[in-house]
Amino acid sequence: MGGVTDRDAYVELAHCVEPGDLALGRLLQALGPAELVDRIRRGRTGLRHGDGLAARLAGRSAADADDRAARCDARIVTRADREWPSQLEALGAQAPLALWVRGAADLRLLALRSVSIVGARACTAYGEEVARLWAAALASDAWTVLSGAAFGIDAAAHRGALTAGGSTVAVVAGGVDVPYPRAHTTLLARIVEEGAVVSESPLGESVRRQRFLSRNRLIAALGRATLVVEAADRSGTTATARAASAMNRPVLAVPGPISSAASAGCHRMIREGLAILVADVPDLLDMLDLTHGGRSESTGSPRAGVAPARTRDCLGVRERTVLDALPARGIVGLDALVRAAGLSPPDVLAGIGILTAEGWAEELGGGWRLARAGRTTPARPRA
Amino acid sequence: MGGVTDRDAYVELAHCVEPGDLALGRLLQALGPAELVDRIRRGRTGLRHGDGLAARLAGRSAADADDRAARCDARIVTRADREWPSQLEALGAQAPLALWVRGAADLRLLALRSVSIVGARACTAYGEEVARLWAAALASDAWTVLSGAAFGIDAAAHRGALTAGGSTVAVVAGGVDVPYPRAHTTLLARIVEEGAVVSESPLGESVRRQRFLSRNRLIAALGRATLVVEAADRSGTTATARAASAMNRPVLAVPGPISSAASAGCHRMIREGLAILVADVPDLLDMLDLTHGGRSESTGSPRAGVAPARTRDCLGVRERTVLDALPARGIVGLDALVRAAGLSPPDVLAGIGILTAEGWAEELGGGWRLARAGRTTPARPRA
Repeated sequence: MGGVTDRDAYVELAHCVEPGDLALGRLLQALGPAELVDRIRRGRTGLRHGDGLAARLAGRSAADADDRAARCDARIVTRADREWPSQLEALGAQAPLALWVRGAADLRLLALRSVSIVGARACTAYGEEVARLWAAALASDAWTVLSGAAFGIDAAAHRGALTAGGSTVAVVAGGVDVPYPRAHTTLLARIVEEGAVVSESPLGESVRRQRFLSRNRLIAALGRATLVVEAADRSGTTATARAASAMNRPVLAVPGPISSAASAGCHRMIREGLAILVADVPDLLDMLDLTHGGRSESTGSPRAGVAPARTRDCLGVRERTVLDALPARGIVGLDALVRAAGLSPPDVLAGIGILTAEGWAEELGGGWRLARAGRTTPARPRA
Repeated sequence: MGGVTDRDAYVELAHCVEPGDLALGRLLQALGPAELVDRIRRGRTGLRHGDGLAARLAGRSAADADDRAARCDARIVTRADREWPSQLEALGAQAPLALWVRGAADLRLLALRSVSIVGARACTAYGEEVARLWAAALASDAWTVLSGAAFGIDAAAHRGALTAGGSTVAVVAGGVDVPYPRAHTTLLARIVEEGAVVSESPLGESVRRQRFLSRNRLIAALGRATLVVEAADRSGTTATARAASAMNRPVLAVPGPISSAASAGCHRMIREGLAILVADVPDLLDMLDLTHGGRSESTGSPRAGVAPARTRDCLGVRERTVLDALPARGIVGLDALVRAAGLSPPDVLAGIGILTAEGWAEELGGGWRLARAGRTTPARPRA
């Protein structure tokens, strides 16, 4: 260990690593963050770009970074924090190490029931209307609308969610203190109030092309499903959709007139089986329920009593471990759950979050209990 | 045998049987047409509606029926005729016994490379344009456009094919001498000139609701694939598409704006995996080639030298028998092929028709030979 906490190490690393650096990500998986920081400082990573990493790491301190974020009304959320969205694990060794977040809402909770809405900047009036109306409908059904704050479909989606009084998250390519595009400064400020503006880029970073690509990857990973409203054929939007599909996230696409080039990417994805066609809001909500685990009540409360969407065999190892650690009856707090599961608190929190979202468990009075549906699932062995 | 030929028996039966009569169809499979006619006349069918059949059969003669057809510039094509389209076998015991045909072109040849275009009568300008343009493109690629001569999508499809100078076939619900709808009298006359008007109903029959349903079944069976241009949800058009799908015929559907009720049936079929989305003409031709066995040359000649679309294992027993009967080299006539295959002439003709259409055999100078592709297919054993 290099003498720093995991959280501090993640914050420091997040300043010097390019998003999606696979070689570094694998080394991180092998060594852990504190040891990796130590090796970079001592020039002992074995990476070809180790010198560059060391130069960018020199003089960094997590405390300084946190101070600077606080001055911008932002915070840094790392893999070691409770607020870390567990969905990002789908990115594997290319998952971000930390995110800069502006906005009062808890990012992990927002992301647990979220849909990414993506589409063309150069959208049509048709696409803009679909994005706006469907985002409003999703927001009314307690889904968080995730998008990229760009012109076109992105902006229409954020605005639709805001109009409906729902939550929306903008994942931006530059620093969260750098409004981009400038014309969306007011929109971004409203998103901060009603949800969160999030970035993998440190504060002050201006927008670069490479950051757009890695940002799109984040949007695909954070959403439970990705909805493509309009996309030209072989566009950046279709690349985002392919990334979501590669992470086994459902991709939904809206058809349009065959004469519209802005729908050509949607049509190709549907035709090739990459995306599922959705033609109206009930279809959309049905698809999300199928993939997510049951419709919420109209109040947006967790779906108590709804049968789990997936069989126990489809749960990850961590979720199954946490599920097995839940007592047959009664409510259990975090500490007891950590002891029973034998996992770290962040792992238990991530696991119970997924179990709650999928209807296996219920949050109640600061603790959790097995949901009725989870209790009666026959495949679940219990001592 | 009841003393009449199979062909005459089919003609007589076609006057007294309701389309799709399953009980009679099964009896026909068991007895053959001549014996069935004899049993109906003697009241020995065991069918509950045997008396009605006998009453309608009384006094019928095939010669009279052929005479009457000739006076209307029509002909009767039965299951025993060379011109019988082998695709109709997909209807099993509910296949028609005979068809009344007006038009100079050979129905079997027209149907071998045909696409059924179906859609709403109450179509939009969008659907009408797609039907017209795509039918023209199909006709230019030597596909026969099959439809039902109704208002809306049907008429647009026929007109598109005619405009492109291609062949088109109208399958109508009433007699081929009864123009329906009356407003399409001129259109139907043009279709007779450039293709064929076909019906399962005897001459003079007016249009009844039940006949529309059985007519739709014929359209689904005759086309190699069925293209749905516009269809309201749960409409007659979607029923036709489901019939085509049940016969393992590819169903293709055109997307449209989600705001258009006329596209709702298409969207549902795509969403449920019943239909494949096609968004442009190249897509459409590619799909048809995949399902049919290689694009024709622009002249529309049979696809000589093109590899067979399906492996030998996918061929039916009859086609395999005929394929095995083709000599390794040289051209063989019908009589020799009948002897070598040990099948009836209609069976050999139907089998060789399919083999030719799928690239296994070539028609040449009044006989057939193994196509080059058929010769080199390794799975094909040869003594």
